[in-house]
Amino acid sequence: MAPDDVLALHESLTNWGRWGDDDQLGALNLITPEVTAAAAATVRVGRTVSCARPLNTVAAADNPSPVAHHMIGTATEGFGADYFAIAPHGFATSHIDALCHIFHEGKIYNGYPAEAVTAHGATRLGIHHLQDGIVTRGVLLDIPALRDVEALEPGEAVFPEDLEAAEERAGLQVCAGDALLVRTGRWHWRAEHGPWDATNLAAGLDASCLPWLRDRDVATLGSDGVSDVLPSRVEGVVMPIHTVVIAAMGVHLMDNLDLDALADACAEERRWEFLFTVAPLVLRRGTASPVNPIAVF
Amino acid sequence: MAPDDVLALHESLTNWGRWGDDDQLGALNLITPEVTAAAAATVRVGRTVSCARPLNTVAAADNPSPVAHHMIGTATEGFGADYFAIAPHGFATSHIDALCHIFHEGKIYNGYPAEAVTAHGATRLGIHHLQDGIVTRGVLLDIPALRDVEALEPGEAVFPEDLEAAEERAGLQVCAGDALLVRTGRWHWRAEHGPWDATNLAAGLDASCLPWLRDRDVATLGSDGVSDVLPSRVEGVVMPIHTVVIAAMGVHLMDNLDLDALADACAEERRWEFLFTVAPLVLRRGTASPVNPIAVF
Amino acid sequence: MAPDDVLALHESLTNWGRWGDDDQLGALNLITPEVTAAAAATVRVGRTVSCARPLNTVAAADNPSPVAHHMIGTATEGFGADYFAIAPHGFATSHIDALCHIFHEGKIYNGYPAEAVTAHGATRLGIHHLQDGIVTRGVLLDIPALRDVEALEPGEAVFPEDLEAAEERAGLQVCAGDALLVRTGRWHWRAEHGPWDATNLAAGLDASCLPWLRDRDVATLGSDGVSDVLPSRVEGVVMPIHTVVIAAMGVHLMDNLDLDALADACAEERRWEFLFTVAPLVLRRGTASPVNPIAVF
Amino acid sequence: MAPDDVLALHESLTNWGRWGDDDQLGALNLITPEVTAAAAATVRVGRTVSCARPLNTVAAADNPSPVAHHMIGTATEGFGADYFAIAPHGFATSHIDALCHIFHEGKIYNGYPAEAVTAHGATRLGIHHLQDGIVTRGVLLDIPALRDVEALEPGEAVFPEDLEAAEERAGLQVCAGDALLVRTGRWHWRAEHGPWDATNLAAGLDASCLPWLRDRDVATLGSDGVSDVLPSRVEGVVMPIHTVVIAAMGVHLMDNLDLDALADACAEERRWEFLFTVAPLVLRRGTASPVNPIAVF
Repeated sequence: MAPDDVLALHESLTNWGRWGDDDQLGALNLITPEVTAAAAATVRVGRTVSCARPLNTVAAADNPSPVAHHMIGTATEGFGADYFAIAPHGFATSHIDALCHIFHEGKIYNGYPAEAVTAHGATRLGIHHLQDGIVTRGVLLDIPALRDVEALEPGEAVFPEDLEAAEERAGLQVCAGDALLVRTGRWHWRAEHGPWDATNLAAGLDASCLPWLRDRDVATLGSDGVSDVLPSRVEGVVMPIHTVVIAAMGVHLMDNLDLDALADACAEERRWEFLFTVAPLVLRRGTASPVNPIAVF
Repeated sequence: MAPDDVLALHESLTNWGRWGDDDQLGALNLITPEVTAAAAATVRVGRTVSCARPLNTVAAADNPSPVAHHMIGTATEGFGADYFAIAPHGFATSHIDALCHIFHEGKIYNGYPAEAVTAHGATRLGIHHLQDGIVTRGVLLDIPALRDVEALEPGEAVFPEDLEAAEERAGLQVCAGDALLVRTGRWHWRAEHGPWDATNLAAGLDASCLPWLRDRDVATLGSDGVSDVLPSRVEGVVMPIHTVVIAAMGVHLMDNLDLDALADACAEERRWEFLFTVAPLVLRRGTASPVNPIAVF
Repeated sequence: MAPDDVLALHESLTNWGRWGDDDQLGALNLITPEVTAAAAATVRVGRTVSCARPLNTVAAADNPSPVAHHMIGTATEGFGADYFAIAPHGFATSHIDALCHIFHEGKIYNGYPAEAVTAHGATRLGIHHLQDGIVTRGVLLDIPALRDVEALEPGEAVFPEDLEAAEERAGLQVCAGDALLVRTGRWHWRAEHGPWDATNLAAGLDASCLPWLRDRDVATLGSDGVSDVLPSRVEGVVMPIHTVVIAAMGVHLMDNLDLDALADACAEERRWEFLFTVAPLVLRRGTASPVNPIAVF
Repeated sequence: MAPDDVLALHESLTNWGRWGDDDQLGALNLITPEVTAAAAATVRVGRTVSCARPLNTVAAADNPSPVAHHMIGTATEGFGADYFAIAPHGFATSHIDALCHIFHEGKIYNGYPAEAVTAHGATRLGIHHLQDGIVTRGVLLDIPALRDVEALEPGEAVFPEDLEAAEERAGLQVCAGDALLVRTGRWHWRAEHGPWDATNLAAGLDASCLPWLRDRDVATLGSDGVSDVLPSRVEGVVMPIHTVVIAAMGVHLMDNLDLDALADACAEERRWEFLFTVAPLVLRRGTASPVNPIAVF
């Protein structure tokens, strides 16, 4: 894809104004009460599965700003208490990006000026707008399973036809309001080969998936990588999925999830849909939150 | 109640060993897959409600260690990014206590030695054991509504007969595996009167509620205060609810929730039960996590 | 003084360009090697005195963002280690402001644009330029001693004639390159009356002192308050000393020092001059550093 | 050297009780006012030189817990302000160890129990006892210059005869109360070869230097490494210099200094002695402080 094509997609796939000039939620508006209730109705066996990596306190090639975790109370003090400090956008942290995270030509989603994002936080599109959480149907598309490998290679791209083949394999179709989770097998690869610079090399979606994502009207998109394939295959555009999905489509991205246990559960339950819940911390004017999304079968 | 009575309750209400010598989950074991599935089946209208206060970055009488929130990227840098630092046990923070939080006579829940809680974190009963989340039926007992006031007075106690009257008013009974939420109206009071030293003065449960809680076999207990009435009405025992519920019964406490919106929703829906989800951050060896519990009607 | 007068002082007292277009040090250029050597030659008895308050970890009216201090290693781990987090500009912290701290009409000292101060730090006038430290003659002007009181009242102003009377009392004159310390007795007052909102009410210099400070060519100015009297007595200008001294004159300010022990030492030694050393942490692109200035008699 | 020899040195070189049962300063007691005054009298030209590395915010093999540095105010907010978080004992940070840092057989310097170091900080031997700073004669022994190399190899040991040869080369002798600085050329090596795991491989003093250090009665010891050669050449004793110097002798260690500019200045001034000042932050109960020691010629 050429850089100009990405620019054109910003125009053609935009959701600016779709939910009003004051909208702070973007595609989460697609999760109507009906969608939420229908998602809850999919629960059958009551099995819950985390989609988060543990917070990582150890510096590594993919974790240059480790979480600081320190104790306030221990055996000596007579109670257990602690403290932690985190920069949630790190490439080793399971987090959800607020819509204020990505700028495009001086603007953020819905046309608000980038200047809304100040050193005192984001006066528009902060993560606190997600206070009431995300509760919707989740769908896992397991690309390594589709390709019959343990994990995609770092840098390997996923295309729209893969998404459709994975849908078919799962016996379902991604619908408006769904939380779409795309597994690349990143953590399996890391366990085998060790950490690498995931800021520059990652399996993920090719930019050609963008119209498909907009067509299916996903409410939120998550991956065990950063959704983007890296390098991006679009010259001069580092993260076309990030920019178009967040800034144009108003879709919240969930990065660095761990979808391995979820893939196992889906295979065992023979179902790739589930109730999916995300409950961001209510950090006013924040640009992200670390999260522990839970799937319920 | 006399101090010796609390000691006796540690013995008589104990769950040590009930779920095995290696148990790390305590009363969350009561949330079987069947309980989870049944809770999901209670969802009717798809309305979601947060039970969390926003993280508080402003020092106050009830917030001596405010959350530090700082920006990494702003309009100038071309992206939004941030960082925060938090001591989750603070009295202004909605959080869930790990079972390693409270010691009793040199031990933590299930008889593990308090020495498991080191300056390198808790080697037993860390919050990361809750990785797969809490998904169960939630029940709200709204005590101010029961007493026909906006909020209990700080220091006002709640007794077992209040819990039963609130059950009756709600038309339900608290069952094994439930997440029990007891509202005192704290934040309404704070909005009217300003912050006060909530570490020493708070509405909450009298220690006489302990046998009732054990009898109903609640899986987790939350409040807009710290569950304990403060002062505790038991000489020499600062927080009898905390110590017996956590250390003896293995029940995870959720402190400083905001249950005002939930109370409104319950009243509007005419139902005081709902699907209740809590997804603690996966902080290995941590003693707590800030949380944003979500109720779904 | 009228607001326009402060504006005029920005013009008339400016040091922009005085030490070159690329200057990053401002009036610290006045501390030539000769000045440093002469200051060292004033040492007679070898007595050292700290001018810092202990870092304050307890929230208070004058300390809304307390220092976070947590342990990494304790008796249990076999070594002592710790961690702290600090916002050095706090009103309870002894610190030195970098020249990038204060803006005036879109510019910082020497005419650099305010845009140099980004969310990635200050690309101009960062505190790291003070890596080689400040070693010069210090002079204490003890205003409460002059007025024969224990401490000035919060909000009480100091005028040029006070500075000159204090010089006379001390038997010396402030010279080019000196570190000037003006004591108001703030901490004595706090010990007697408790903390107050020192961001809005503080003893300090009236704006009429500005020409005097420029005339004496002080290299750096410190106080047990923030140098400015608060409120400032200039309508619409919150901190005229801060703005003119830092942005126009390029003089580094040291705020919230503790000068009580120094005043005692001066009185005992019968000398109000001493060798004065400040060694800011080398925080690249930082806007300040907590410091522990040391006086040597 | 055998492990038992190190144990014997703990006994034979001890300073426990030498300055009283309540002593909190250890060998800093050797810096009498006379020593300080004499050190000031060595100043001739007024040249100042920092001995600190800039605080390092970038993770690396020798910096697994980088300093977090974030902005509070930028161009957008109208002022510059920031925040940083640091674990000062890191191997990339110039810091001074408090005497509570190292334990030996359950005790810290002067025989206090290790239990004094709690998760609420060190109730004995905290860094705040150094509030009035260190002002004494500094002496640089430049081992690479002695050996006519740019830098020692990581892991290369320095012996007592090297220290004496370096003294002779410098035309001086280390005396009671001196701050002794031993340069290994670490940062030159790092600039050439990149970072390495300096926690396990570093040039420094062989344990056989311990009696020499005690004999000369140094007040404080600093290095561009951690003073210890690593690996230590004593089986089972990771850091014999650290343990004996701190726990037995009560000598404060300064780790990870940058002595390259100081070596250049010494060579240019043809003097390896100077006034040396260290001003630790006044962190109550702290185990260390980041510092920027300043040498004055």
